[in-house]
Amino acid sequence: MKTSLERIRNDIEQLAKFTSTPGNGLTRMSFSLEDKGAREYIKKQMKSAGLYVYEDAIGNVVGRLEGEVDGPVVMVGSHFDSVKNGGNFDGQAGVVTALEIARVLNENSIKPKYPIEFIGIIEEEGGRFGSGLFASRAMIGQVSRNDLDIYKDENGISIAEAMEDFGFDPSKIHEGIRKPGDIKAFLELHIEQGPILESKGMDIGIVEYIVGLTEIEYIVKGRPDHAGTTPMDMRTDALDIAVSVISKISDFAKEAGSGTVATVGVLNILPGAANIVPGEVKFMVDIRSKDEKCIEEVKSKIEESLLESCKINGTEFTSTEKLYAPPVKLSDNLINKVIKYSDKIELKRELMLSGAGHDAMVMAKITDVGLIFVPSKGGRSHCPEEWTDYEDLQKGIEVALETIIDISKND
Amino acid sequence: MKTSLERIRNDIEQLAKFTSTPGNGLTRMSFSLEDKGAREYIKKQMKSAGLYVYEDAIGNVVGRLEGEVDGPVVMVGSHFDSVKNGGNFDGQAGVVTALEIARVLNENSIKPKYPIEFIGIIEEEGGRFGSGLFASRAMIGQVSRNDLDIYKDENGISIAEAMEDFGFDPSKIHEGIRKPGDIKAFLELHIEQGPILESKGMDIGIVEYIVGLTEIEYIVKGRPDHAGTTPMDMRTDALDIAVSVISKISDFAKEAGSGTVATVGVLNILPGAANIVPGEVKFMVDIRSKDEKCIEEVKSKIEESLLESCKINGTEFTSTEKLYAPPVKLSDNLINKVIKYSDKIELKRELMLSGAGHDAMVMAKITDVGLIFVPSKGGRSHCPEEWTDYEDLQKGIEVALETIIDISKND
Repeated sequence: MKTSLERIRNDIEQLAKFTSTPGNGLTRMSFSLEDKGAREYIKKQMKSAGLYVYEDAIGNVVGRLEGEVDGPVVMVGSHFDSVKNGGNFDGQAGVVTALEIARVLNENSIKPKYPIEFIGIIEEEGGRFGSGLFASRAMIGQVSRNDLDIYKDENGISIAEAMEDFGFDPSKIHEGIRKPGDIKAFLELHIEQGPILESKGMDIGIVEYIVGLTEIEYIVKGRPDHAGTTPMDMRTDALDIAVSVISKISDFAKEAGSGTVATVGVLNILPGAANIVPGEVKFMVDIRSKDEKCIEEVKSKIEESLLESCKINGTEFTSTEKLYAPPVKLSDNLINKVIKYSDKIELKRELMLSGAGHDAMVMAKITDVGLIFVPSKGGRSHCPEEWTDYEDLQKGIEVALETIIDISKND
Repeated sequence: MKTSLERIRNDIEQLAKFTSTPGNGLTRMSFSLEDKGAREYIKKQMKSAGLYVYEDAIGNVVGRLEGEVDGPVVMVGSHFDSVKNGGNFDGQAGVVTALEIARVLNENSIKPKYPIEFIGIIEEEGGRFGSGLFASRAMIGQVSRNDLDIYKDENGISIAEAMEDFGFDPSKIHEGIRKPGDIKAFLELHIEQGPILESKGMDIGIVEYIVGLTEIEYIVKGRPDHAGTTPMDMRTDALDIAVSVISKISDFAKEAGSGTVATVGVLNILPGAANIVPGEVKFMVDIRSKDEKCIEEVKSKIEESLLESCKINGTEFTSTEKLYAPPVKLSDNLINKVIKYSDKIELKRELMLSGAGHDAMVMAKITDVGLIFVPSKGGRSHCPEEWTDYEDLQKGIEVALETIIDISKND
């Protein structure tokens, strides 16, 4: 029972053609012409693999292989939308995994006990409507009819309008909901989007936790004085205060341990002129960890440090939590099966964290979830250079295949 | 021989009316309707004070009081243009000084030995054409006919076109040049635009040096990685490197001494997203000192520090000097006279630096220059709140009056 490197390569290359930015990476927004093209390709592959193909009320593409019993369903897949000028593997790798598993099961006439649904998910990136993890959230009932009117693309087209354009009925979105008990397990294969597997020479990553995440906006107040006429000891320089704290954030993350990371990726100065002392600095801190206590520790240290620095300078700061998602522990049952089948074909495997959010994180609210990583060259992602060797992808698919056979056969 | 608080107040209040942003501070661009109004007011006051009034080939307003000899000329004044939404004192205070001295000399029928020219200068701020210190640079021959076509306002109108609109002939700009030897001395009174006089309870500042200034742009290279999937020890975070140096710049300035100041007022991150490790950071450092060695010291320490931090992180930086102006030592002769007349009326005086550039800095290239500061409330300037008490302004004007009488009478 073998997967085919040739078919895997062909899937990736064919799907890569459905981009609105040829030569500049993959750009495939949900409910676009490129979505239509990729969707038709996926449906055709699914039909050839003997699946019953349908589109759910949300817009996801599903190929179903009936089992001996009606349910619950074993689900495998990932998303087929992309960021702007992204790469050919983010999401697509997991969709191709689903297609290849379906083909192998079909070739080998495998009849599972539980039905298997192979799924291509839309709008995970939120690239078009600014609403990330949209379709998985809709599948677990977290998207209302009203939300479909609220989220709009840059041309003012709402999700509802875009759905109608594709022949979907926004008022029926609730029909796409999967209830707890409907799904036996959800397995996703995804590229790592980070440098760990490559740098450690590993074949496959087995995700134990999807990290929790907070994004906090800090605003430090200073006084905007003339940069020439204001002596150093008479200034309240908001940037000086901010950098005294930002320069410690790396250490705060390292001290917290458990693979905690913290990043300042946005910083703005007001008024922002070379000859004016910064009167206000706004910066965002992104903190992620598998352990909520570590996130809290980094946050506390930042705020203590800001408080001290502001006190010394006779000024103040504000903080606003813009985003919070708790860590998600994935299913031990699935982790153990993925370990077992990795070891069976002697893969070098790494138990690891997922530092990015995935549909798997959402699905974990209603079912057992497994998440397999394959290596990303240079850790690059969300760019045209994003790359995973086809051989590496195939190794991950082989493990996913064995895992799906196992969980669709056994209770 | 007394100055009049009432007249000084009236001048400031009348000039304040010629603004394009009533209720939002003083906005008076050169060769605008507001310039026309202020120009006419200044000319009328000059004529009433018995001066021969003319406009030079550049567009400055001049009132001339003949002396016993033809020349050289003693010149006193400042600029009457403003920044956008500026205050009523920056520049205007020095123009009112000229007007009030002219009135007092006229009332007291004082006939100087050397002719005195009372001057209202245009386009010091560069608010309209982005060409600061324009008119003083033109007076010393640093503006060519071609420059008048190059510098344009936001509507694409060149200086030449704006001059023609006001009846000036751009091809005659060279006729406005004052040669070394033409001017015996140039005295300017200006608001401090900083907090020193007020905080020390001083009446008047006597400027010894206009500081030298450099503006350097630094670009630190990092690697733009995913903020969730890239472990702390596998990052090249351009912001982390930049802040490790920026956090020391205050200390570098203090260590250099001589009132050296250094400011980072602009900082930009690429790509600038909360969930991406900074791949590039660009920031501007503004360093000012009366001593070029101090500027060089701060610059060297910044670059050594960046070099070290980049080396540790296996990356690099670039630096580009965007602006350099050497320090200007003002005339000891004028400084001593201003000291003498301050002491005569028992003013609390402070020998100090000018951290900002002024027309006086340019004029110092061709003549002896004196620069008197009066206190700025809260150090505020270039904003509607800019304020100097009329009593404080009057004290400065009295010292300027005595100084002008002295230097226009004696060799």
